[in-house]
Amino acid sequence: MATSGKVIRCRAAVAWAAGKSLSVEEIEVAPPKAREVRVKIVATGICRTDDHVLDGTFPDLQFPVIPGHEGAGIVESIGEGVTSVKPGDKVILFPLPQCGECSFCLNPDSNYCLKTHLTEPQNLMPDKTTRFTCKGKQIQHFLWNSTFAEYTVVPEYTLAKIDAAAPLDKVCLLACGFPTGYGAAVNTAKVKLGSTCAVFGLGGVGLSVVMGCKAAGASRIIAIDINKDKFAKAKEMGATECINPQDFKKPIQQVLTEMTGHGVDYSFEAIGTADTLIAALASCNMNTGVCVMVGVLPAGSTVPIDPFLLLSGRTCKGTLAGGWKMRDSIPKLVASYLEKKFNSDLLITHTLPFAKINEGFELLRAGKSIRTVMLF
Amino acid sequence: MATSGKVIRCRAAVAWAAGKSLSVEEIEVAPPKAREVRVKIVATGICRTDDHVLDGTFPDLQFPVIPGHEGAGIVESIGEGVTSVKPGDKVILFPLPQCGECSFCLNPDSNYCLKTHLTEPQNLMPDKTTRFTCKGKQIQHFLWNSTFAEYTVVPEYTLAKIDAAAPLDKVCLLACGFPTGYGAAVNTAKVKLGSTCAVFGLGGVGLSVVMGCKAAGASRIIAIDINKDKFAKAKEMGATECINPQDFKKPIQQVLTEMTGHGVDYSFEAIGTADTLIAALASCNMNTGVCVMVGVLPAGSTVPIDPFLLLSGRTCKGTLAGGWKMRDSIPKLVASYLEKKFNSDLLITHTLPFAKINEGFELLRAGKSIRTVMLF
Repeated sequence: MATSGKVIRCRAAVAWAAGKSLSVEEIEVAPPKAREVRVKIVATGICRTDDHVLDGTFPDLQFPVIPGHEGAGIVESIGEGVTSVKPGDKVILFPLPQCGECSFCLNPDSNYCLKTHLTEPQNLMPDKTTRFTCKGKQIQHFLWNSTFAEYTVVPEYTLAKIDAAAPLDKVCLLACGFPTGYGAAVNTAKVKLGSTCAVFGLGGVGLSVVMGCKAAGASRIIAIDINKDKFAKAKEMGATECINPQDFKKPIQQVLTEMTGHGVDYSFEAIGTADTLIAALASCNMNTGVCVMVGVLPAGSTVPIDPFLLLSGRTCKGTLAGGWKMRDSIPKLVASYLEKKFNSDLLITHTLPFAKINEGFELLRAGKSIRTVMLF
Repeated sequence: MATSGKVIRCRAAVAWAAGKSLSVEEIEVAPPKAREVRVKIVATGICRTDDHVLDGTFPDLQFPVIPGHEGAGIVESIGEGVTSVKPGDKVILFPLPQCGECSFCLNPDSNYCLKTHLTEPQNLMPDKTTRFTCKGKQIQHFLWNSTFAEYTVVPEYTLAKIDAAAPLDKVCLLACGFPTGYGAAVNTAKVKLGSTCAVFGLGGVGLSVVMGCKAAGASRIIAIDINKDKFAKAKEMGATECINPQDFKKPIQQVLTEMTGHGVDYSFEAIGTADTLIAALASCNMNTGVCVMVGVLPAGSTVPIDPFLLLSGRTCKGTLAGGWKMRDSIPKLVASYLEKKFNSDLLITHTLPFAKINEGFELLRAGKSIRTVMLF
């Protein structure tokens, strides 16, 4: 039964235009329509992708927009036809829907959904209207998440109910950053027991890759970053060695090949530059090596790949949110978290009140934070 | 027991310098040294890779050289320590050794071998000397094959004994072109029953991919070439549709995506250009699609890949000679051939006496042949 009610006035961080800081504003959030859910966001992580919204490199966006896509909260009200959640349920919102009906959702090997932003931009709700207004202006949604708002409205297939025991200020990371990195290792690369891995970039996603490699039983996990301050954390999460490319005169791919004999079994690029993607590809074994592109490169960029890197048998593949079918998997990941199968809390370096959201972005850009969680 | 004897004088096709036609000469072939085998070549195919030798784009070669790497013959004599073949045995030579001892050979997932040209150029025999001289000059080997010679000397681990019933003028194709294409489908892509495939380029390797897709049970095999003369043969081999990109105003990747809804499950590039590799990658399903690079691009070239093609989950991978461990697999492929599990004879459009080898290359370059087999 629908419980949708009145317009809610609350705070949100609005990106009015590309290249500008977020502005914390009072907004109006309309009630959910059919098959939509209005969620009171309790906690939301700040992900590099949100910064790509602010700098204007995220594709097919329109301004003004409310970013944020790593949120956990409590259902406030539901629209007609919503059956999977009810008011009071704890939920995680995710940046990749799972409609359950399209050809991709019906394919067990796929985690794409035809409702995803890449096929059909999610700047408006499925009915092509927005639930957000601010100062009389319509505000766009972001990935049907917009978790930088105290209340947000999303389609039912963009969230999932999670265990009531889950601490929302911690499991919000299970919406995007953690599952993307962890899944890149366990789902996309399918890291084997006893294998050797290299992880380029020790941000939140890269560190989650490290945790995934460890969970999969890799015997050697080489963590790579130009910021040595990340190394202690990487080792805490399972890295067996940490190296800084700036400490070598040789290209890092040559260093890694020499360290491992013939390259690593699996390499992961979690930065988002063409140079590091090529280095990651060249660092894995020339015949059986698998390189997973986890980082998001700027839209419109190209990666000039030497075809001889592939000719000898290497694999280069992308991972979409770690390969998880989100609605099916996120509640299970939360259960694993509660069973302490992994400790994603290690990723959280800062917790700030929502009003300080621009401070959170400054920490990210300065390389001082891994994940900052904003609390309403 | 070694049977090596005297120097043999015989005919061979020598490439004296890059950019020049082959020259049929009388050469001297020294007896095999320890762990080497001298083979009387009966038949050899002409592969596009041999043309890359002639045009100078094959990496790490030295001239003068005797090309050719798709040969079948009869063992003439063996050096000390050779145990797997004896004089009189029918053998196939292959361009990828399998020493059986290195870390790659010991890895069941790998078909590389540390004795391969890409690690250690095979322009000389393992002892760093040549067995070929011509007009007083030392002539280089090619991939430890040099099958454009009536007699050649190769390391034992570069050939395998095959069934005595095998017709050498037909199974010589099982040395390189056929297994590369066929294996790209059945080993590298692991094409699934009922899947949809696109094959770019209908030369000998591309048509072998078509046969591999058919053998794997693909329900739809779309063959692509700008030469419509190839279409009848492609359909004979299993293609369900044949299309010419020049018949469309749209990019071929868009045509294929529209033909299939969301792109093919598997795409294969068997031409060797950056444009067709990008088109093949873009033609496969954005999430689960696998693009296999089969064609050899010029050394030093780069492929400017849009990272968003990978971001959504696509896989791009190379295939090294179709993923076969050659010594283990080629005799089994010959057995399958004799059991008529595939008909690689369909690839042979021309058979010429060895003296007409340059005519064979002209047929290849003019797109008039699929495979020309040269007979001594």
